[in-house]
Amino acid sequence: MKFTVAVAGCTGYAGGEVLRLLLGHPEITIGNLTAGSSAGTRLGEHQPHLVPLADRQVLPTTAENLAGHDVVFLALPHGTSGPVAEQIAAQQGGDKVLVIDCGADFRLESAEQWTKYYKTEHAGTWPYGLPEMPGQRELLKNTRRIAVPGCYPTTTTLTLLPALTQGLVDGHDVVVAAASGSSGAGKAPKPNLLGAELFGSASAYGVGGVHRHVPELLQNFAKLGAPEPSVSFTPLLVPMARGILAVVTAPVRPGVTAEDIHAAYVKAYADEHFVHVLPQGQWPQSQHIVGSNAVHVNATLDADAGRLVAVGTLDNLCKGTAGGAIQSMNIALGLDETTGLTTIGVAP
Amino acid sequence: MKFTVAVAGCTGYAGGEVLRLLLGHPEITIGNLTAGSSAGTRLGEHQPHLVPLADRQVLPTTAENLAGHDVVFLALPHGTSGPVAEQIAAQQGGDKVLVIDCGADFRLESAEQWTKYYKTEHAGTWPYGLPEMPGQRELLKNTRRIAVPGCYPTTTTLTLLPALTQGLVDGHDVVVAAASGSSGAGKAPKPNLLGAELFGSASAYGVGGVHRHVPELLQNFAKLGAPEPSVSFTPLLVPMARGILAVVTAPVRPGVTAEDIHAAYVKAYADEHFVHVLPQGQWPQSQHIVGSNAVHVNATLDADAGRLVAVGTLDNLCKGTAGGAIQSMNIALGLDETTGLTTIGVAP
Amino acid sequence: MKFTVAVAGCTGYAGGEVLRLLLGHPEITIGNLTAGSSAGTRLGEHQPHLVPLADRQVLPTTAENLAGHDVVFLALPHGTSGPVAEQIAAQQGGDKVLVIDCGADFRLESAEQWTKYYKTEHAGTWPYGLPEMPGQRELLKNTRRIAVPGCYPTTTTLTLLPALTQGLVDGHDVVVAAASGSSGAGKAPKPNLLGAELFGSASAYGVGGVHRHVPELLQNFAKLGAPEPSVSFTPLLVPMARGILAVVTAPVRPGVTAEDIHAAYVKAYADEHFVHVLPQGQWPQSQHIVGSNAVHVNATLDADAGRLVAVGTLDNLCKGTAGGAIQSMNIALGLDETTGLTTIGVAP
Amino acid sequence: MKFTVAVAGCTGYAGGEVLRLLLGHPEITIGNLTAGSSAGTRLGEHQPHLVPLADRQVLPTTAENLAGHDVVFLALPHGTSGPVAEQIAAQQGGDKVLVIDCGADFRLESAEQWTKYYKTEHAGTWPYGLPEMPGQRELLKNTRRIAVPGCYPTTTTLTLLPALTQGLVDGHDVVVAAASGSSGAGKAPKPNLLGAELFGSASAYGVGGVHRHVPELLQNFAKLGAPEPSVSFTPLLVPMARGILAVVTAPVRPGVTAEDIHAAYVKAYADEHFVHVLPQGQWPQSQHIVGSNAVHVNATLDADAGRLVAVGTLDNLCKGTAGGAIQSMNIALGLDETTGLTTIGVAP
Repeated sequence: MKFTVAVAGCTGYAGGEVLRLLLGHPEITIGNLTAGSSAGTRLGEHQPHLVPLADRQVLPTTAENLAGHDVVFLALPHGTSGPVAEQIAAQQGGDKVLVIDCGADFRLESAEQWTKYYKTEHAGTWPYGLPEMPGQRELLKNTRRIAVPGCYPTTTTLTLLPALTQGLVDGHDVVVAAASGSSGAGKAPKPNLLGAELFGSASAYGVGGVHRHVPELLQNFAKLGAPEPSVSFTPLLVPMARGILAVVTAPVRPGVTAEDIHAAYVKAYADEHFVHVLPQGQWPQSQHIVGSNAVHVNATLDADAGRLVAVGTLDNLCKGTAGGAIQSMNIALGLDETTGLTTIGVAP
Repeated sequence: MKFTVAVAGCTGYAGGEVLRLLLGHPEITIGNLTAGSSAGTRLGEHQPHLVPLADRQVLPTTAENLAGHDVVFLALPHGTSGPVAEQIAAQQGGDKVLVIDCGADFRLESAEQWTKYYKTEHAGTWPYGLPEMPGQRELLKNTRRIAVPGCYPTTTTLTLLPALTQGLVDGHDVVVAAASGSSGAGKAPKPNLLGAELFGSASAYGVGGVHRHVPELLQNFAKLGAPEPSVSFTPLLVPMARGILAVVTAPVRPGVTAEDIHAAYVKAYADEHFVHVLPQGQWPQSQHIVGSNAVHVNATLDADAGRLVAVGTLDNLCKGTAGGAIQSMNIALGLDETTGLTTIGVAP
Repeated sequence: MKFTVAVAGCTGYAGGEVLRLLLGHPEITIGNLTAGSSAGTRLGEHQPHLVPLADRQVLPTTAENLAGHDVVFLALPHGTSGPVAEQIAAQQGGDKVLVIDCGADFRLESAEQWTKYYKTEHAGTWPYGLPEMPGQRELLKNTRRIAVPGCYPTTTTLTLLPALTQGLVDGHDVVVAAASGSSGAGKAPKPNLLGAELFGSASAYGVGGVHRHVPELLQNFAKLGAPEPSVSFTPLLVPMARGILAVVTAPVRPGVTAEDIHAAYVKAYADEHFVHVLPQGQWPQSQHIVGSNAVHVNATLDADAGRLVAVGTLDNLCKGTAGGAIQSMNIALGLDETTGLTTIGVAP
Repeated sequence: MKFTVAVAGCTGYAGGEVLRLLLGHPEITIGNLTAGSSAGTRLGEHQPHLVPLADRQVLPTTAENLAGHDVVFLALPHGTSGPVAEQIAAQQGGDKVLVIDCGADFRLESAEQWTKYYKTEHAGTWPYGLPEMPGQRELLKNTRRIAVPGCYPTTTTLTLLPALTQGLVDGHDVVVAAASGSSGAGKAPKPNLLGAELFGSASAYGVGGVHRHVPELLQNFAKLGAPEPSVSFTPLLVPMARGILAVVTAPVRPGVTAEDIHAAYVKAYADEHFVHVLPQGQWPQSQHIVGSNAVHVNATLDADAGRLVAVGTLDNLCKGTAGGAIQSMNIALGLDETTGLTTIGVAP
């Protein structure tokens, strides 16, 4: 007996990626597909790469259309998942439905931070779907609510995690620059996201600590043991569709060697199926994780600068959103965590 | 009991794609991996996206290293498969090994055409691995030798096939312009294939009927019923890694309508799992087939020009090389033709 | 005494390119800059590359704001230049103002063709700004109205011109596939023009003779001597911001050799400053013309197909729009035709 | 009377860019063009975008071929300029020739640092061609030897300069991540620079303080007043041909506001023609400086992180190499510093 899944926001990038992965998931039956303004159209108009679903009708995103499924994915704009989640919860048996929010609404534990960065009322906090964080996997078992982490926080957290948990850095004065493909900005058309603006161009945005992923980063660093976390985070937009590559540096504990650092990473991720620590001297390249749920990571010492330098990459739509969501779903449903997911990228 | 497979040329693009697909194939065990100058290195140096094979040692391409497998893929430079194939054939039981050549050596039936275009002696002709060509699927059953078609001929042939087999065009004065990503040119470094030369740039090459895929195209058109095939074929290099998009036009039989044309395509491909005919008015985009074995195709009438215009796209490394090869392998081994292959692309 | 120039539509791609070139033009003073919804903003918000104009205020596009200049460039959406041109003409001295329309409104001579393709009433016909067409340069001298050709017609016409004027082809059954960067589609945000949709993707659009540049092509072929012009034209969108590369084939007169063809091109363009015929065997690459007013072209024979194959490339925003416009402006104003323009591209 | 210029290394990217700019320089006559293995070919084979020089013959790089010019540009691989410079100096009047080295050989003042990073003997130290550094412009007047700065150091130094010279930061614990297009890696073909490897991919390299530009950065920071400079520098390769975008952060002096920072940048660069400080809230995008000699820069405060964050972008081949070289040449020759250079980029 397979689990039935509905997807709200099926015409966007996150929704499309959820569906791409679910089509290859052996324990899932794809149920209703819903959207806002695209309701009434064929899915094939919006997601031509999902050939088996080309003739599916897009339904309006209503509580009725989402009802009666074992799992509901919400791939909606930030701030809009809250009300839909409430409607689901209010339905008969709504608390038994596994609701997975790919948006930001339920990620933050601090209502204050939520309001500071999102300017709306805090909807609540759900179990955080990053199984590689110590303790988190347990919290996801049998949960019926999952908040999918942001793509930058997933990348940055997994890139720094071993250094934090093994005490090589203390999580203070972390500096991050992360280059992202433009699919992370979504499918709503804006002039600055036009191809003609992005080809042959790198740019920075959200400079000066104002990006909404900053409080999520600090929340994660604290959970990983940082007593006084602080981070300077600068996102870059670079000319590609998918992928994030994060450069994460932090002051390193005196006496730590490059070998110590690499060994710590190998040890921390020895049992993690989706995190691949590269050999010393080989650095991650985002092309290699496209379409996969893998994270490629490596780290070394910059002795003269007194900093640990770690580099990590993942597919923002897959491990950074939909793949990570399905990994957490598998845990919540009691399935093998890797079901329907791959570590193998589509390259070149 | 799974089939064991060796791959010669495992560090290149075609070899890498064969391995990417075989890693997801449930009936296959991956055996020896061989290469030329890279022998002795870790595969992870060359194919970092193939995480499960990262620590595999690359062996030299010798008859010994390829021996003892059920299937051998040759992903070697054009003109070099012939001698390796001979060595395999000369081994004990060598005629029972399924040898699949991803190169050009065994595609052409005419030794004269081979010598005209490749300037070497003709190695022979093997069953042609394009199952969607009428009659071809039968020839692949139980064969122990498969010549994988060229990526441009696969695209062009499948883009024009319904028009030829259903008599809408006669295969004379076909004009093709096909835009390809640069992975089709292989991984051997040449100045004109550098990223800096290709970013933001479209170019034509092999202009004037001199591209080596021309005789293969004419061979296919003839098999599809063209009494006097002729083709003007111009390949373009465009700034992307994967994908071919072919525009194929041909003088159309008088009286044929746009609806006739679309209906002929729908009918011809109704039972083909990997060929997806788009609805009228929707045109193929190469992004949608990346990583998949799908072909997206559509066709219409240009009434004023008196031509049928068809557009098709596929992933040159997947359906155009490695995916097509595995599809044919499945047939030859008696497996379901679609095993280990998907119609779903990685987009955006 | 310099000529004063106003630009309507200064925030778009065509308007930005007009300004980029005018900033380097020694005989021009840049006057009012106008736009629609962006009126009231700094130009630097929209065109950060035009540093010397960063603090210029964008004015509303009104007849008043365009009045009092020697030259007015209209870089407006198709169908909207007509009314603005009428307002200018109605002003005192309006007939002495040089009005240059970068849009389509005044390109076509046939009102019927206009209405068929643009679905609105025909605004009229102005001298056609393609000086390289025989006789056209004379018509541009002292004119006060110029219709700038479409970017595809400029590319295609100049790619085929020598073959037509020297009788190597008769302009019947011409087949064109032209790959374009996405700046040609303008700056109005649409989902299909997002970077995430275009990276790594080639696509066809306007297939089947429905593109609005078809009647303009046929008009040009007829002027170049084609008794019964016909064309199958397919535009492609490829992942780059600027540049068009056109592959143009046509049935060749029997007996013509590759050498004849190349010689005809060299001869036809011997005195054309902006058209560069490459040596035999070297084919145009769009990167080499970025930012320049040059056209790179070459042609040869496909003997087996019985077709001449010509390839040409230019920068759609420069020679294909703004550069061509300024070239024609120079002629109309009695300046040296090459003033403020370069044949040198920005590559790689 | 124009100055005559020879260019050694005319077939590479730096040499090509020097020539592109010199072709538009009113005080220059282009003399001999030399190269290594390409000697004897047409320049048009290598630099098709330089139409006016297409038929120039490439000469071998010898002292004889470089003799007799007023200016010699060396655009040669690192470590090879030294011997050529010696040969020029040994010629009669060789000390009166203005020799401009686009390579690294003469940038560093410390022989020890040179040998540590370049593993060869130090060739010497020439006046450093970064006129925007206080005091540097004076040193370039009438000099006959110029060391052109590295592209990353130019970007990073100009991005941090106002903060250092005005005491907002002290140059300790600077963290830099800089995304570069691949032309910076040159034209010698290597597998990792192939287009197929770079499309859709971001990667880090030279991680951990090992990049050769680190000692040059520290040398610059010290000259700008840093008592104990230290830097963590991580270069990224992103999918574009041209441009560098640097994110530079450093611990900020307590009490400094975002407004202080922006005002310091505006003040520091008020008289610098080529450095454009964007308005608060607008961040640099590399597309806007392509082909220009401009630097776009902005900076703000990350109060929570206690860091100043500055972002700068320039064209690595132009302001970062050839344009900067010509700017310095102008100063050395007593010409207006801006001659032949533009602040206007080619965008989109």
